[in-house]
Amino acid sequence: MTPEPLPVPGPTNTLVDVAGLAVGHHQRVGDGWLTGSTVVLAPPEGAVAGGDVRGGGPGTRETDLLDPCNLVERVHAVSLSGGSAFGLAAADGVMRWLLGQGCGFAMGAPDRLVPIVPGAVIFDLGRGGRWDATPDAGFGAAACDDALRAREQGTDGRAGAPALGAVGAGTGGQVSGGLRGGTGSASQLLPDGSTVAALVVLNAVGSTVDPRTGELYGASRLLPGDLEGLPGAPSGARLHTPEAAEVDAARARAVELGSEALPRTLATTIGVVATDATLTEGQAQRLAMSGQDGLARAVLPAHSMFDGDTIFGLSTCGRAAPDALGFHRMLQGAADVVTRAIVRATLAAESVTTPEGTWRSYREAFPSALR
Amino acid sequence: MTPEPLPVPGPTNTLVDVAGLAVGHHQRVGDGWLTGSTVVLAPPEGAVAGGDVRGGGPGTRETDLLDPCNLVERVHAVSLSGGSAFGLAAADGVMRWLLGQGCGFAMGAPDRLVPIVPGAVIFDLGRGGRWDATPDAGFGAAACDDALRAREQGTDGRAGAPALGAVGAGTGGQVSGGLRGGTGSASQLLPDGSTVAALVVLNAVGSTVDPRTGELYGASRLLPGDLEGLPGAPSGARLHTPEAAEVDAARARAVELGSEALPRTLATTIGVVATDATLTEGQAQRLAMSGQDGLARAVLPAHSMFDGDTIFGLSTCGRAAPDALGFHRMLQGAADVVTRAIVRATLAAESVTTPEGTWRSYREAFPSALR
Repeated sequence: MTPEPLPVPGPTNTLVDVAGLAVGHHQRVGDGWLTGSTVVLAPPEGAVAGGDVRGGGPGTRETDLLDPCNLVERVHAVSLSGGSAFGLAAADGVMRWLLGQGCGFAMGAPDRLVPIVPGAVIFDLGRGGRWDATPDAGFGAAACDDALRAREQGTDGRAGAPALGAVGAGTGGQVSGGLRGGTGSASQLLPDGSTVAALVVLNAVGSTVDPRTGELYGASRLLPGDLEGLPGAPSGARLHTPEAAEVDAARARAVELGSEALPRTLATTIGVVATDATLTEGQAQRLAMSGQDGLARAVLPAHSMFDGDTIFGLSTCGRAAPDALGFHRMLQGAADVVTRAIVRATLAAESVTTPEGTWRSYREAFPSALR
Repeated sequence: MTPEPLPVPGPTNTLVDVAGLAVGHHQRVGDGWLTGSTVVLAPPEGAVAGGDVRGGGPGTRETDLLDPCNLVERVHAVSLSGGSAFGLAAADGVMRWLLGQGCGFAMGAPDRLVPIVPGAVIFDLGRGGRWDATPDAGFGAAACDDALRAREQGTDGRAGAPALGAVGAGTGGQVSGGLRGGTGSASQLLPDGSTVAALVVLNAVGSTVDPRTGELYGASRLLPGDLEGLPGAPSGARLHTPEAAEVDAARARAVELGSEALPRTLATTIGVVATDATLTEGQAQRLAMSGQDGLARAVLPAHSMFDGDTIFGLSTCGRAAPDALGFHRMLQGAADVVTRAIVRATLAAESVTTPEGTWRSYREAFPSALR
């Protein structure tokens, strides 16, 4: 019996491999700022959506309407943002921007629209030095402008690929041990020709790195090509087990930073899992739920009382509905693209120093791992 | 066996009979506007909170954190607003205002605060004539200023009573049959000395009026004194069965307006039920759930696919926790104060005409009912 071949990433290995979606970022760094916003734009007719909250400290908006027993089935965008609950304001800007585009839930007349924009936020307050330097409605609108540019620059009905690393909502992201988080994305082609993809904003009380080996928890789920084109990754790079001296130094720093103690800050990882296959609202929720398993594999601990981990599931309904086996495989893929997106966020992030502290990139902390 | 005496309303018969809470309104009427926002301010240390969404088209924020298994237990305010999902922006203003007051969830240092502000919105778009005339962050902040004034004008630790009728978030409210909705409130003293009270923003696809008799569905739950001091209610007024001619005219108008057909608009009734007794988060959620029963008794149909009916439950923890019987009675009271608040909103509202149409007050449509 021949083993099944390894899955293959889509053309850009990001969320926009799901045709019809576009991703835009806006961020501000310096002068007390270290935060940003990311928007995922659905096609104009919206995307069927679900959601799943598993962290103990969520910051969310418009999640109640995602319940499959409620009226609204499609969302026009998902707003992901830094700034803790203050960053929910970014979604106001996304709504206004969508209204300007004539995009929304139609209330009986073409010009009477209510854009549907669920959103979630990560806790990154104060990391740039100022507690009140948080995304507002302007960040959401600027992220939409960026997504529109990406859509215009795309080919074959797909938007241009988003930047990865410490950009957009992941700008102020961190993980345990003084390492920097960030925004990652990955995609996978499914046997039935559809695509499943994720975009994740990594920011966790837990760690992405096994302290015993320095290896990334999610590394075993990577696919060939996952390191290609990442910022800072040499062409043809592979992941290696880091040298013992680097592992010891990282562990010493984690102890010094108190990463072993009760967290002194909130965190929260948020994201979107999407497919071009036609799903029901309930299936879109299952997509989000499986995405949380991918998070659990890449971050330890995940879903703590100090994280508000929230995943949204989107279906653009651009292809046929999957059969039972197809959906079963899609859910496995949903978990994997989240794990891979987290690894890719970790690898793409760069070190940063602000008045509040220094967050090292994985590749600076473990230079022997990526070569 | 002597029958139990009728319950008695608190001193102001509004939400602020729960000591520590304050209510503020802000609204704009005319020039295309017919909408507003209402804020319920908790004591500075916050109120233990739960929530319950039972309508099919909710517009909400920060409801996921109310889950009793999540980290945050207390909220600093509840934002209720017109403007459909656009009106969620009012809560951004409430957050900023609370931050300015030094009020929020403390993140390890006294000046590192995140105010917790769940919120819900009603659908009132376009009723003033302009689709884009919706509450923004400024409405939320202005409602907070109003609540602060009410707190400063209060006595005995209680804030001044809020205005009732078509004010605040209820400014653009309507119910079936071309009748105007509005903001209502009521309170009840419980046998153990604690208080349960509600503030409700009435706006429903359904009706508050039995079309066969012209009587208000919730009228039978009124307590002596519930009509005292209501705008437009003569001193000593009681509710009577309206004259047949008025009932016939109202029914004819409802048919003309298409109230018997599939709703052409969304609606949504939202509110807060609160007590000064100490509750757990789970009990605060039960308080909200019982409040929905009170809504079901006052509005038919309630909780439709075109309403996003959402009730928040608050405990200021200013008195001892109730025993099992005390909590059982409190839940009955929670339903009743919501029913009575809805009746009081209906009776206090005034007629209004905008470029979009005319909404008649109950007392204009049924003048023989209230005398």
